[in-house]
Amino acid sequence: MNVEAAVDELVPLLMEQLRGCPSCRMEGRSERGLNLAGQQAVRRVVDALVTILFPGCHGLGPMSQDAFETNLRDRLAATLGELTEQVKRAFEYQCRLKHCEDCGSCALRAVAAMEAFVHALPAARDILAEDIVAAFEGDPAAQSTMEVVMSYPGVYAVTVHRVAHILYDHEVPLIPRIMSEYAHAETGIDIHPGATIGPGFFIDHGTGVVIGETCVIGRRVKLYQGVTLGALSFEKDAEGNPVKGIKRHPNVEDHVVIYAGATLLGGNTTIGAGSVIGGNVWLTHSVPPGSKVHNQQPRPLIRQADGHWGPADAPWSDIGGGI
Amino acid sequence: MNVEAAVDELVPLLMEQLRGCPSCRMEGRSERGLNLAGQQAVRRVVDALVTILFPGCHGLGPMSQDAFETNLRDRLAATLGELTEQVKRAFEYQCRLKHCEDCGSCALRAVAAMEAFVHALPAARDILAEDIVAAFEGDPAAQSTMEVVMSYPGVYAVTVHRVAHILYDHEVPLIPRIMSEYAHAETGIDIHPGATIGPGFFIDHGTGVVIGETCVIGRRVKLYQGVTLGALSFEKDAEGNPVKGIKRHPNVEDHVVIYAGATLLGGNTTIGAGSVIGGNVWLTHSVPPGSKVHNQQPRPLIRQADGHWGPADAPWSDIGGGI
Amino acid sequence: MNVEAAVDELVPLLMEQLRGCPSCRMEGRSERGLNLAGQQAVRRVVDALVTILFPGCHGLGPMSQDAFETNLRDRLAATLGELTEQVKRAFEYQCRLKHCEDCGSCALRAVAAMEAFVHALPAARDILAEDIVAAFEGDPAAQSTMEVVMSYPGVYAVTVHRVAHILYDHEVPLIPRIMSEYAHAETGIDIHPGATIGPGFFIDHGTGVVIGETCVIGRRVKLYQGVTLGALSFEKDAEGNPVKGIKRHPNVEDHVVIYAGATLLGGNTTIGAGSVIGGNVWLTHSVPPGSKVHNQQPRPLIRQADGHWGPADAPWSDIGGGI
Repeated sequence: MNVEAAVDELVPLLMEQLRGCPSCRMEGRSERGLNLAGQQAVRRVVDALVTILFPGCHGLGPMSQDAFETNLRDRLAATLGELTEQVKRAFEYQCRLKHCEDCGSCALRAVAAMEAFVHALPAARDILAEDIVAAFEGDPAAQSTMEVVMSYPGVYAVTVHRVAHILYDHEVPLIPRIMSEYAHAETGIDIHPGATIGPGFFIDHGTGVVIGETCVIGRRVKLYQGVTLGALSFEKDAEGNPVKGIKRHPNVEDHVVIYAGATLLGGNTTIGAGSVIGGNVWLTHSVPPGSKVHNQQPRPLIRQADGHWGPADAPWSDIGGGI
Repeated sequence: MNVEAAVDELVPLLMEQLRGCPSCRMEGRSERGLNLAGQQAVRRVVDALVTILFPGCHGLGPMSQDAFETNLRDRLAATLGELTEQVKRAFEYQCRLKHCEDCGSCALRAVAAMEAFVHALPAARDILAEDIVAAFEGDPAAQSTMEVVMSYPGVYAVTVHRVAHILYDHEVPLIPRIMSEYAHAETGIDIHPGATIGPGFFIDHGTGVVIGETCVIGRRVKLYQGVTLGALSFEKDAEGNPVKGIKRHPNVEDHVVIYAGATLLGGNTTIGAGSVIGGNVWLTHSVPPGSKVHNQQPRPLIRQADGHWGPADAPWSDIGGGI
Repeated sequence: MNVEAAVDELVPLLMEQLRGCPSCRMEGRSERGLNLAGQQAVRRVVDALVTILFPGCHGLGPMSQDAFETNLRDRLAATLGELTEQVKRAFEYQCRLKHCEDCGSCALRAVAAMEAFVHALPAARDILAEDIVAAFEGDPAAQSTMEVVMSYPGVYAVTVHRVAHILYDHEVPLIPRIMSEYAHAETGIDIHPGATIGPGFFIDHGTGVVIGETCVIGRRVKLYQGVTLGALSFEKDAEGNPVKGIKRHPNVEDHVVIYAGATLLGGNTTIGAGSVIGGNVWLTHSVPPGSKVHNQQPRPLIRQADGHWGPADAPWSDIGGGI
């Protein structure tokens, strides 16, 4: 193939498409350029923040104790500088999107959000310390808290959530969601940055977990893989589009355990404190504190090698499914 | 450990294994070298193509408007050059594998496939524009189409599919599958590059979705996480191996919604236009247009804190499970 | 925001938190520094080992046949050197964690583990050759063993498991788990490095698969996506913490097939040789060899477009769910 000819053919067509594309920020902004640096830049910030919060565990190499504080200063300065820039651009993007008439206040909101982020970071790390202990205590396979930090996907996803949620709380556009989807890509755990989650939160294994935007989760809650905390079919507006901004996802009170594959749906659904929800349970209404909920599992049919139907009377004995 | 001694021990053993390995292309081709560059090179091409299709969203840095067209040209030339090389090698590999007796025609097929790819790319981008709108309209949490492009895993997986499917259609070996598995690794969404998918396709959350090779999906279809469009136990040939190349996966007509965890199986299964399939439904036969299908969910048993069995009479009210 | 002021505010707070953090190895080790290089270094070793075991498939570029052996030597030396260093640090970490009184023996154990790793690597590659054949034969969509190596996530996850399991067997701390979680991040397949798995093991699609630490799996077993081989609610000790180190996960004998979404739980559960477990089955007891187990699937309710309830009498005909 003649690559040059192909480029000549494609470039005008692609340029035309990009100019008309609302997601590509091309139209009418030649003075600013394509100045949203994008997904990869935000992912680099997340990497840096995780390394700052857990030095040695996620970094690329060893580090001497003497140089440590200097190193932390430099890394923090670079990361906060980069994040400030990204946050500013995200507010500018939203400013254009909403045809804002007071752009100056957008810039101020970016500064205020970053200042709030800095003040909130130490408290977030305190909560993460509780999350790590909960993971270590909650999994019989865990040998040390170090192992938990270095290898547990649930701990990583919650770490990113703690950071993203601060920015979400201060209404930073785009960035929190890019952060949470980075963690989703790494772990298969999809936590919307809007979810409110108490300390000591542990997700084991985690692949397939979905936690919706308006969930409110208490202290010391434990989830296993494949748990959905989701919405019932959502309300539609007059044009048939989903109504945005209403409470759509469940509340989970303190000390609840939810086993693998359970689906809890609806903004009015509250799982009372200390309840245990068994594997694969489907629940669309509230249960009081201390409830134990399990499925009447469909008892499987067993045909043995000799053609006889096997013992279907073996006890179904456990609500569990911990790994 | 003495690393040098270990290397001396291992190298002869590994060399012998590699020489006998049909997957490693060592035997009898010293003149060509190990010339299939592999998974990582194809992944770089995917990254570049995504950046070309959505500049600013997935790139590493900002870009000035003036330099944009030049930059696009350079990037496109480099990427098409690299992809051409990979496609050529893939056809050469297949040529050897099938003991082809007309290798010249393989080279021509590689050129033809790349020319077809170039011609098809603008139309694929048009379809992607519809996919993005469908994602924005389909999720109450979405704030802008930019957010959708920058953070939605379903949009990313479908983007890669649109590209990989062009190559699959022109019978390029290996490359389309490596592309789709890259997207699978990033998103947990496993779309075989052979699947035929109409415009306005949206997968929300997406972890655990599997879409088989011979699926045919209409316009404006929406899936949630954990949906399988799969095969029934497949036919075996005389040696007991699966028969390759028959229609094994379902058809899904226009405007169908399939909620989380549903499993639809079989090449003769057709979901009629406008149908809604509820969460966790298991379906191995067709349903007519406009059907609403939901599970008789196993009603969970609830034992309350005081030992009494709780209200099992709460209504099971919704086919949904949107998040 | 004034980044410098923010850094001045944050550094003392973070330093204090890090000094008190048991997972961050700061306290009392100024002489050693933060010498555990962490997750990223182990991930680089995994990448290198996969490239060594399957040259050309996973590497970044083509390679000439002449240079191949030299290249393999260099790569192997570098990788074994790096892994030796990581293993040494992991034993040192554990030595401090357990307040070991005979640190010299920890160093010797690190050397012994690496020597055992070197001796075991060729046999692991032999087993992987069987895994690859099983994948090719087990999937009707596979076109060549090369395609399987280059693109199948199940093959990748099993490759990493074969390597990690050697280190686990020699009681190397931390590293095996970091390796297996790397594969989990890439594939959505979570295999604890402690699991014992026979040759010819194939996981198709794989997202959501969880295989627990004490599983014992025979030869030529095939799993689909979303299968859990897990524990029942585990025993608690006097303080209410899970008891560590007991057999908690199932045995799966030779030639068993387990379809998508099945959940098999408990350390006393044995799936007899040649059994087939249908999609979504939930099983907490043993079945004899040759059993075919399928769900009495909840038959879905179908309401047609005209408001009538549709045919619920279509046959439920298959235990499968292969893709």
